[in-house]
Amino acid sequence: MTVPFVFEKPLGMRDTLPVLYDLKTNIRQRIQGVTETWGYRFMNTPTLEYYETVGDASAILDQQLFKLLDQRGKTLVLRPDMTAPIARVAASSLKHEPFPLRLAYDSNVFRAQEDEGGKPAEFEQIGVELIGDGTTSADAEVIALMAEVLNKAGLEEYQIAIGHVGFIQELFLSIVGNEERAATLRRFLYEKNYVGYRRHVREMALSSIDQKRLMALLTLRGDGSKLSEAIELLPTDKGEKVLSDLRTLLDTLDSYGVAHRVKFDFTLVSHMSYYTGVVFEGYANNLGVPLSNGGRYDELLSRFNRPAQATGFGIRLDHLTEALNPKREELLPAAIIFSPERKKEAIQQATERRSKGEKVVMQELSGIKDLDAYSEGFEDVVYMIGKNGRGTM
Amino acid sequence: MTVPFVFEKPLGMRDTLPVLYDLKTNIRQRIQGVTETWGYRFMNTPTLEYYETVGDASAILDQQLFKLLDQRGKTLVLRPDMTAPIARVAASSLKHEPFPLRLAYDSNVFRAQEDEGGKPAEFEQIGVELIGDGTTSADAEVIALMAEVLNKAGLEEYQIAIGHVGFIQELFLSIVGNEERAATLRRFLYEKNYVGYRRHVREMALSSIDQKRLMALLTLRGDGSKLSEAIELLPTDKGEKVLSDLRTLLDTLDSYGVAHRVKFDFTLVSHMSYYTGVVFEGYANNLGVPLSNGGRYDELLSRFNRPAQATGFGIRLDHLTEALNPKREELLPAAIIFSPERKKEAIQQATERRSKGEKVVMQELSGIKDLDAYSEGFEDVVYMIGKNGRGTM
Repeated sequence: MTVPFVFEKPLGMRDTLPVLYDLKTNIRQRIQGVTETWGYRFMNTPTLEYYETVGDASAILDQQLFKLLDQRGKTLVLRPDMTAPIARVAASSLKHEPFPLRLAYDSNVFRAQEDEGGKPAEFEQIGVELIGDGTTSADAEVIALMAEVLNKAGLEEYQIAIGHVGFIQELFLSIVGNEERAATLRRFLYEKNYVGYRRHVREMALSSIDQKRLMALLTLRGDGSKLSEAIELLPTDKGEKVLSDLRTLLDTLDSYGVAHRVKFDFTLVSHMSYYTGVVFEGYANNLGVPLSNGGRYDELLSRFNRPAQATGFGIRLDHLTEALNPKREELLPAAIIFSPERKKEAIQQATERRSKGEKVVMQELSGIKDLDAYSEGFEDVVYMIGKNGRGTM
Repeated sequence: MTVPFVFEKPLGMRDTLPVLYDLKTNIRQRIQGVTETWGYRFMNTPTLEYYETVGDASAILDQQLFKLLDQRGKTLVLRPDMTAPIARVAASSLKHEPFPLRLAYDSNVFRAQEDEGGKPAEFEQIGVELIGDGTTSADAEVIALMAEVLNKAGLEEYQIAIGHVGFIQELFLSIVGNEERAATLRRFLYEKNYVGYRRHVREMALSSIDQKRLMALLTLRGDGSKLSEAIELLPTDKGEKVLSDLRTLLDTLDSYGVAHRVKFDFTLVSHMSYYTGVVFEGYANNLGVPLSNGGRYDELLSRFNRPAQATGFGIRLDHLTEALNPKREELLPAAIIFSPERKKEAIQQATERRSKGEKVVMQELSGIKDLDAYSEGFEDVVYMIGKNGRGTM
C-alpha cells in the first residue's frame, strides 16, 4: 500500500469533522422542528434503489448516477434525489393513506462528479413532498414553508425566485412548434446562457414578432408587475390561467408574510425534467448557488401507478450552512484526569456532573502521551492523581 | 416497465415509514445526548470509500461489500463499518489533535445480502471510538458508556458478554502451534458451532491434556469466578496479564454500577479480524441477535500511519428499536380545512398554533378527494368553509 493513498477519498467525497457536524446538527434540528409543526411526517428510503425504478424516474443526468450491479445483474443506483423514492413509497406502502400526503425527509443524495476539487458527490438534503393536491394553496404552502425553514435556521438575507415551467413550455411550443426545438431553448435557459439564447433565437426562421416574444421572455424577471407583461407574451387561455394562478400565489404568500422575499423569474428552468408547473429556487445573498429548489411535478406519480398532482422542495444543508456562516467555535468539555488509585472517585464525580448535562471526559493519566497538548483541548481540567489529596488546576 | 417492478427495492433495502422514523429519532437523540456528556464528539465520513483504503481495512467478508468502479477504474465500496473510516480521519484530518481522541458517529453502513427476506443490507449504527489509549480504564469506559446508552434508551433487560481475543489466540497458539490451525478453531467459535469444535479438537493429534484445555475453554462462560478457572488454562505471563486486566476491568465496571450486567464468555470471537484484546457484545433478553458489539483494536491505526491502541463499540439502531418494542402510536396533528375565501384566516390561525409548537396541517378543501377518509388522520379538524361563520367539528 503506498503511503499517501491510505488517506484518499473518492472524488467529491468529504468528511464532516466534529465542529461542522455540530453546526449542521443544530441547523438540521431547527429545520425538522418547523417542518413537523406544519404537519409533515419525516420518513426515509434506502440509499440504493433499482435503476429502472427510481434512478430512471429521477431524471438526473445519467452520467451523474453512481451505478452498480447486484448479484442478479440488475443495475442499482445510489439515490440521486428523494422525490422519486418518496413517490414510490406514496404509491406502495402508503397507498391506503388518503391524499393529500405531507411527507418530509432528511437524507443524503448522490451525484457523481468528474472533476477534482469540484462539487460534492454526496450531500444532505432536507425537504418536503405534498402529494395529491393540485391547488395553488399547495404551491403557496411549500414556498411559505421553505421561507419559514430558512427564517428559523437563522438566515436573514435571502430571496425566492418563482417561475413556471408550464408557461415557458406553452410559449415555446406556440412559437417553435415542436418539443425538440423547445428543448433546445430550455437548455439555454437551464445553463443561464442568455447570450447563446439570443443568438439562437436570431438564427431561427421566425417572424420578427415571434423573435421579439422569445427575446422579451428574458426581461420577465422582477416583482409582481412582471405578471402583466407576461400575459402579453402568451395571451392564450392557458397563459391566462397560469398568470391568474401566479397572482393568487403571490397574494397567498403575502398572507404568509413572505411576499417580500419573492421575485418572479420566467427564465427559471429546473434541471429536473419532471417539473410541470410552478418552480422556485431560494438564494442567499452571500452565495453564488441556489440553496434550495422545488416545484410542481404532476406527472411523476403516474409512473408508480398512483396518479397525483404534487409539489415539494429540497434544501441543501451544506449550502445553507455556508450561507449562515456560523462561528466555528467548539464548546470544549471538562476533563477529569486520574491515576488508578483515584479511579472510583473520578467515576463518581464524572457521573454526577454528566447527570446534570455537563460534558465531562474521564481520562487515566497513563493513557496520555503529551499532557500539556492534551489538556489544551478542555475548558477545565480536574486532576485526581496519587493516593492522597486532590489537585485542581 | 412491468407494473409490479416499479415498487421493488434491492435485496435487503428497506423504507422507514413515518411512525418507525419517529421512534428511531427519539431513541437516536437520547443516545447522542448521553454520548456527548461523556465527551465524545460526533463526526461523519462519506458513504463511499476506496476499497484499497477502507474497504480492505474493515475486514468485512469480501462478498458482503457493495463495490463499484469510479471513472478512473478504481474500486469503491459502500462503507461496511465506521471504525476504519474514523481511523483514516484520526490519522489524517485530525492528526494534529493529541491522543486520546474520543469520537462518535451515527451513520448507515452496508452489507450485501444474498437471500431474499433476510438481513437488512443497510443499517444505522451509532457508536464511539476511543483512540490512543491502551489502558484498562479505556476498555471499561466504552463498556460502561454502552451500558449507559442502553439504559438511557430505555432498555431494561440486557446483558453484556465480555471475552478476550488475545487470550484465545495465545491459548490456541500455545497448543496448536500455528496461525492457520488457530484460525480453524476460531472459525468454529465465530460460528458458535461448539459441536463442530469438539469434534475437530478430538480429531487433532494432541496430548489428552491439551485436548482437555481446548475443551475446557467452552466452559469459560459465566461470572467473575470464571477468571480463576481461565488462568489454569493459560498459566503463562501473557495469560496472567490478561486475567489481571480483566479483574481490574470488572472492578471498574462495578464502580460504574454496571457489573451486574456483565458475564464473561471466553468463547466470544468477533467477525472483525482487527480486534486484538477485550471484545464484548450486548444482548437484550427478547432478541436473538446481539444489539451491539465492540472491542479493542490495537493494530488498525498503524495501517493509516498513526499507530495507536484503540477501542470502541457500535450499536445497531434497528435491533435496539426492536428490543425496546415501543408502542407504535402516532401523535396525530390537527388540521384546518379551508375554502379559498377563508384562506387568510386559516393561515393566521395555523401560524399562531404552530408558533406554540402545535402540529397543524392546513388543507384547502378542493385538494381533498375523500373528506371522511382524510379527516380520520387528524386529532381534530377545524373547518373554515364559505364566506361567513366558522365551523368546528
